[in-house]
Amino acid sequence: MDIEAFFAAKLDSLHNEGRYRVFADLERRKGDFPRAIRYANGTRSEVTVWCSNDYLGMGQHPPVIAAMHEALDRCGAGAGGTRNISGTNHYHVLLEHELADLHGKQAALLFTSGYVSNWTTLGTLGAHLPGAVIFSDQNNHASIIEGIRHSKVEKRIWRHNDPKDLDRLLSEYGREAPKIVAFESVYSMDGDIAPIKEICDVADKHGALTYLDEVHAVGMYGPRGGGLAEREGLMDRITIIEGTLGKAFGVVGGYIAGSAALCDFIRSFASGLIFTTSLPPHVAAGALAAVRHLKGSNAERELHRDRVASVRGRLERIGIPYLPNLSHIVPVMVGDPVKCKWISDTMLDSYRIYVQPINYPTVPRKSERLRITPSPLHSDADIDHLVGALSDLWSRCALARAVA
Amino acid sequence: MDIEAFFAAKLDSLHNEGRYRVFADLERRKGDFPRAIRYANGTRSEVTVWCSNDYLGMGQHPPVIAAMHEALDRCGAGAGGTRNISGTNHYHVLLEHELADLHGKQAALLFTSGYVSNWTTLGTLGAHLPGAVIFSDQNNHASIIEGIRHSKVEKRIWRHNDPKDLDRLLSEYGREAPKIVAFESVYSMDGDIAPIKEICDVADKHGALTYLDEVHAVGMYGPRGGGLAEREGLMDRITIIEGTLGKAFGVVGGYIAGSAALCDFIRSFASGLIFTTSLPPHVAAGALAAVRHLKGSNAERELHRDRVASVRGRLERIGIPYLPNLSHIVPVMVGDPVKCKWISDTMLDSYRIYVQPINYPTVPRKSERLRITPSPLHSDADIDHLVGALSDLWSRCALARAVA
Repeated sequence: MDIEAFFAAKLDSLHNEGRYRVFADLERRKGDFPRAIRYANGTRSEVTVWCSNDYLGMGQHPPVIAAMHEALDRCGAGAGGTRNISGTNHYHVLLEHELADLHGKQAALLFTSGYVSNWTTLGTLGAHLPGAVIFSDQNNHASIIEGIRHSKVEKRIWRHNDPKDLDRLLSEYGREAPKIVAFESVYSMDGDIAPIKEICDVADKHGALTYLDEVHAVGMYGPRGGGLAEREGLMDRITIIEGTLGKAFGVVGGYIAGSAALCDFIRSFASGLIFTTSLPPHVAAGALAAVRHLKGSNAERELHRDRVASVRGRLERIGIPYLPNLSHIVPVMVGDPVKCKWISDTMLDSYRIYVQPINYPTVPRKSERLRITPSPLHSDADIDHLVGALSDLWSRCALARAVA
Repeated sequence: MDIEAFFAAKLDSLHNEGRYRVFADLERRKGDFPRAIRYANGTRSEVTVWCSNDYLGMGQHPPVIAAMHEALDRCGAGAGGTRNISGTNHYHVLLEHELADLHGKQAALLFTSGYVSNWTTLGTLGAHLPGAVIFSDQNNHASIIEGIRHSKVEKRIWRHNDPKDLDRLLSEYGREAPKIVAFESVYSMDGDIAPIKEICDVADKHGALTYLDEVHAVGMYGPRGGGLAEREGLMDRITIIEGTLGKAFGVVGGYIAGSAALCDFIRSFASGLIFTTSLPPHVAAGALAAVRHLKGSNAERELHRDRVASVRGRLERIGIPYLPNLSHIVPVMVGDPVKCKWISDTMLDSYRIYVQPINYPTVPRKSERLRITPSPLHSDADIDHLVGALSDLWSRCALARAVA
């Protein structure tokens, strides 16, 4: 088999479908977010980033950066091993305590990423709980899907955000079978929010455990940034809360929070935790500073909501269609992969605005979009510039406007 | 089902078998490696670490630390997104070029960890190459096994480091079937080295691709730290070289190096790469500094070999049995899980020496061991102290000594 020809053909098909991904080569500028330097064709130019998941700008927050500098000087660059073999650093221990407290749980467990948290936790539970069934929301993230798939557990998919459909599926199983209901609080691409209480009620009725991915919500919602389950007063109804340190907390890494026995079990049996180098100590120190700050400060969350509302209001005024939702994510709908990529490219080249196009398979075909993520750091002038650019390009693409 | 009781029972069985893992709570001391502070029972004490995979001490190397401070101040804490959505930083691009050059390949691709590199690359290849078969060395790492398992590809296991057995298995398949031979250059727990040339010869004979995990070799072997394939002049015989930034390079992260089309294919089709936050820019900057330094300097590698030889010589003189091998890993064989853990605990409490016990399932039962990793930073006095402690405890445990 000619493997190079095989790869080339696969890549050609992506090019032909207009969904070959080009990664923008950026240099974020600490102290100057959302500004970044873009490297392209041997030149450097300044752009404004409108699609980062560093939602609150904590990646340049002075106490976070200071904590990282300090820990780097104290402990060095890396952890030097797996959690089990010399790679547990005291910052990991402190951060796990802080995260357990954030979610009102007995314990928390760090992973190298949110992806690995989902994959490893669901994969381990599915593989070890005899006769288990995982009930997975239809729109769950790739990492949840891969974790379930990996465990080879029985999987049932319920209609997105539909507790009735979940109830129907759960009814097919006896009370004694271990059942896990896996869902997200905020879905990344549509920005819609799960009916957490109703889902927990259904899970309780059938004696099922609940697994809630809050990666787009931790730091962002709830009086201490505990996520939507905190805001809704439902943290005690969730068996396992999963979160990330790489979005609102501005650094990198993932975690789960739950009972002490659960975390100890995953810690003891999860290949994806045991056999991998742990997060650098200074990364844990930075995340610790971010979590602590956002526990005590609402200023970033309030300003963030204000900026999101402002972007939505301005888009409405000129009829640019966006998907309405109750979260902070503003999906501007284009509905065509070629136009979506063209708008994104032109915004970057002509307006110095960076919003990555989101095409199939990340979203369904005909729902191609620009996923805009306002932050507290975007000024009124940034919003003016974004909305003006979108208005120009909407006209040039002859795309329909919403009627006000 | 009482899930808490289930977890408790599983954990009890680990305790009863003497293989419940306790993570040592450490604070590495930059500038003072291999020394660390150990937190236990509310107290802090200084220990000497003898089991780190920061093999060369690059985690405290001044140019590495300086590069990380600089990039932290330039770009902030995290990447702010996935590689595709605002999270590609120029440091990632520079590091990928540097790694491609290190291995004499057209391209390289970063992942969040070595575990994820193996899992994602083999998982993606296995799932996408129609009719593929992966031939996996019997002792391959968990991340390789999980990647193959995940892809649902046909898997054949060949006897450890045995090219004849590989040849036998490959002979069962026609030339047209896509075949991948997956193996490691240095096996972590025994420290033995693969017959790379013989394996490549067999793979070539059958038209198979080769996938070589060099995580315990990059930075350590070869004139520029390209690993054992570099030392043996065999880099061009390997289709895909996989490495880590978390061991000899002292930071965290993983990568593959190979043809441009291969890396572009994995980049485009791998869930574990596309849907996860990328490494922080300053982590890439630190790894870049470490790779560049070890390309040009043999001093760390030479001193390292000297320290390894010294530990082995001293162990031999007092008859402490270790597994002989041609790498830098010194497995001191205890052969009993309870004694192994007791020696480790006593070294830590009474001698302030930290070597994690390695028990089943990481190694086979009755081959429980202390996996000792000397570094250029261990002094003669450190070695005296280690060997003296082992000698004392060997006598107290009534363990056999080797005849000189």
